[in-house]
Amino acid sequence: MVRFYHEIPQALRLDFYVRHHGSPDYTHIAKTTFLRHYKPMASYIEPKILKGFRDFLPPAEITRRDLLEKIEASFRSFGFLPIDTPALEYAEILLGKGGGETEKQIYRFKDNGDRDVALRFDLTVPFARFIAQYRGELTLPFKRYHIAKVWRGENTQRGRYREFTQCDFDIVGSDSPAADFEILLMMRNTLKALGGDVSIRLNHRGLFNRFLNKLGVAEKSVEILRTVDKLAKIGQDETRRLLAEITGEEAAGKILQYTGSHGTFEETLAAITALSGGESAESQRLKILRKDMIDSGTEASFELDPSITRGLDYYTGIVYETFLKEDPAIGSVCSGGRYDNLAGLYSKDAISGVGSSIGLDRLIAALESLGKLKPRGSYAELIIACIKEEDAGAYQTLAGKFRAAGIPCEVLLEAAGSTDGKQLTKQFMLAEKKGARWIIIPGENPLKDPLTLRELKNRQNREGLTLENVIDHIS
Amino acid sequence: MVRFYHEIPQALRLDFYVRHHGSPDYTHIAKTTFLRHYKPMASYIEPKILKGFRDFLPPAEITRRDLLEKIEASFRSFGFLPIDTPALEYAEILLGKGGGETEKQIYRFKDNGDRDVALRFDLTVPFARFIAQYRGELTLPFKRYHIAKVWRGENTQRGRYREFTQCDFDIVGSDSPAADFEILLMMRNTLKALGGDVSIRLNHRGLFNRFLNKLGVAEKSVEILRTVDKLAKIGQDETRRLLAEITGEEAAGKILQYTGSHGTFEETLAAITALSGGESAESQRLKILRKDMIDSGTEASFELDPSITRGLDYYTGIVYETFLKEDPAIGSVCSGGRYDNLAGLYSKDAISGVGSSIGLDRLIAALESLGKLKPRGSYAELIIACIKEEDAGAYQTLAGKFRAAGIPCEVLLEAAGSTDGKQLTKQFMLAEKKGARWIIIPGENPLKDPLTLRELKNRQNREGLTLENVIDHIS
Repeated sequence: MVRFYHEIPQALRLDFYVRHHGSPDYTHIAKTTFLRHYKPMASYIEPKILKGFRDFLPPAEITRRDLLEKIEASFRSFGFLPIDTPALEYAEILLGKGGGETEKQIYRFKDNGDRDVALRFDLTVPFARFIAQYRGELTLPFKRYHIAKVWRGENTQRGRYREFTQCDFDIVGSDSPAADFEILLMMRNTLKALGGDVSIRLNHRGLFNRFLNKLGVAEKSVEILRTVDKLAKIGQDETRRLLAEITGEEAAGKILQYTGSHGTFEETLAAITALSGGESAESQRLKILRKDMIDSGTEASFELDPSITRGLDYYTGIVYETFLKEDPAIGSVCSGGRYDNLAGLYSKDAISGVGSSIGLDRLIAALESLGKLKPRGSYAELIIACIKEEDAGAYQTLAGKFRAAGIPCEVLLEAAGSTDGKQLTKQFMLAEKKGARWIIIPGENPLKDPLTLRELKNRQNREGLTLENVIDHIS
Repeated sequence: MVRFYHEIPQALRLDFYVRHHGSPDYTHIAKTTFLRHYKPMASYIEPKILKGFRDFLPPAEITRRDLLEKIEASFRSFGFLPIDTPALEYAEILLGKGGGETEKQIYRFKDNGDRDVALRFDLTVPFARFIAQYRGELTLPFKRYHIAKVWRGENTQRGRYREFTQCDFDIVGSDSPAADFEILLMMRNTLKALGGDVSIRLNHRGLFNRFLNKLGVAEKSVEILRTVDKLAKIGQDETRRLLAEITGEEAAGKILQYTGSHGTFEETLAAITALSGGESAESQRLKILRKDMIDSGTEASFELDPSITRGLDYYTGIVYETFLKEDPAIGSVCSGGRYDNLAGLYSKDAISGVGSSIGLDRLIAALESLGKLKPRGSYAELIIACIKEEDAGAYQTLAGKFRAAGIPCEVLLEAAGSTDGKQLTKQFMLAEKKGARWIIIPGENPLKDPLTLRELKNRQNREGLTLENVIDHIS
């Protein structure tokens, strides 16, 4: 296998020179020619990527960037601040004392300095470490977002990826219901800005725990929460069977009554307040959140759903999942909740907060299947044709005037190799293939002569235009 | 070490309940209280990151994002398209048959499926693999950019990072000088847009190779190019000594004459054309590029510098480095060149191209030291004070009207705990600390009553304003 010229054995090079040029004198030419024509005996390395990983070609990457920009603009409009953390961290930091399921999925190895390191598998654990480390430098309440890739060696058969992007946003250092509401509103508004009308299903873990306590099964709350979390997936009967194994049949029935449907937000709140032993700080908080929803005219986006529990153990207050109204079956595209002690692994200071995470890949899949994404192949709708390659400097100057006016403009680099009149036709086809709408055919003097503007779709030319005419026409 | 409540042994939990509440009945309250007050015997995991890696707190991350947005806007204005590739790839793909220096620096390990994998150490190798893999799907010439992190286990003592961001842009599938010029112009314009006036030092490897061939030392061109590449760092004398070891004293002297100063662009071009044996395709290309520079009025940004060689072996045509005119000593902030066979490791099809890479970290360091960056602590210059926490919904509605007008607006979440008149003062201080310019003090009914707008810096209040008044005033 040969990659670089100097890796080719000298004897072979000389042999090649002689065969191609009759003399070993043309090394500088031979080098190029050699690499073009030399086919080594050994096979090439097959260009492929790891299973569960993805390349993004321009149309897919443009779609992703368009969405991420809208998401980020929404986060910023709420005054949230960006942070970033390393992709690679000490395994101990990411895994704590040993992570069970997580440990099996994580990319963990020894680096060249024999350190036990791992790729982050979410953005929550690095954020917890971050908060413990920089607490003194941050102004609390701290509102941050973090958009970055994470890695999990998950079974890819379930259609999951091993590298994917998360968009996390959290408020830490505030116990106020106003913080809960802000996160809920951001979820709603951000997804709406992307074209998704959502239903956010909300519950309160603390209220559910009160109920479980009253039922005398509080000690088993983790198993119960995890089982109820599967309700939508495994169905009522299977959930009842699993719950009965944990709590006995009677309690299982009562739990399913609690998590069942009770009507409107207000009716549901009244029902679960009663089931959990009457008014409490938790039911009070849900009441305040309901008032906030009504005061902001967003109540239609929220449901109180006592079956939402979230599997993750660190949630202690409200929890929520977000479904697209037009395609709830795809599952939650944005979930989260309130936690009491995010950084407890790294610091004795308890820092509470509330946050949420958008799963970009699932969201893209959903918006795509709903036809909400308008894929585009290019950022530049305007292209300048190449009449003479030696005029590249003038074409770039012309293009620069459009760019300065805020219009992305691509310059074609080659005159398509002929002067038989077909060179322009070839460039029109190339421009259309690139996803452009317009092509400019410059004159002999690209900067002084009138321009011709062609609309590619309908093949109409407008001739004799000034630069300003063109800008007016395409803006 | 305890992280989650359910990890605490039950005996300990019960002990805690009894100590704090006298009865194990308040599990749902106790859970929260427990995590707040429980100090385990074992020590916490120290929150720290790996050497050579960095966290970015909001001010630094905002600066990075501001720069990246400008860079990306510039790339897009030229019609360049984004792609993305996995952070993790087969080691064989990234390293080829074994990479010498690279191998020592790379993060390489076996994944859970026992695959030999590695983190990418640049964006060029993945791009080569990408081109070989998707050649049939891409429209050539293909203009792409890729902004992403790369990882190298380099010695951090030299002030290098082990995780850093690269911004690569390339045109593949065109041998035209117009492609060379477009990359050169993009470098210049992009860096100018960031506030850096640059000098791009340009050379042609092919012309240099012609000269070396004439000198009879072409076979040693790789070592010679690498040695000349160190010229600026190690000085004339040391370079002469090292070259003499490779080529003998006489040739070393002639090489240093070639790489030395010859005057203007035109004078230098004439000198190296003569030294390399007269007019050639390579000297002709440099002439065309000079014409493009003059035609586009950008000639002041370019120098012909025969000492520029770039260490990397795959360059075959023009090569260049970019220096900030106000601080050339910081080194090149954007470098690259033309190559004949990018994807030769993965495909028999030779794909030529030309490209460049911005080193974001060095660029930020340079712009910072030149005072060209205006650090800001926040995206939201406008903040809404919190008079009553239960009005969070109304405050968010008010904020939503500013956000809809394109004005990022943060809502304070807590009334700062007192009604002694100092609660507002505390919020003014908080808003200033957050980097805001303005704070709105809403009335009893935030959506109907007149608003007070306070400019934080000069502590001036404007009272009795409508929403429109506020927008007019701060826009």
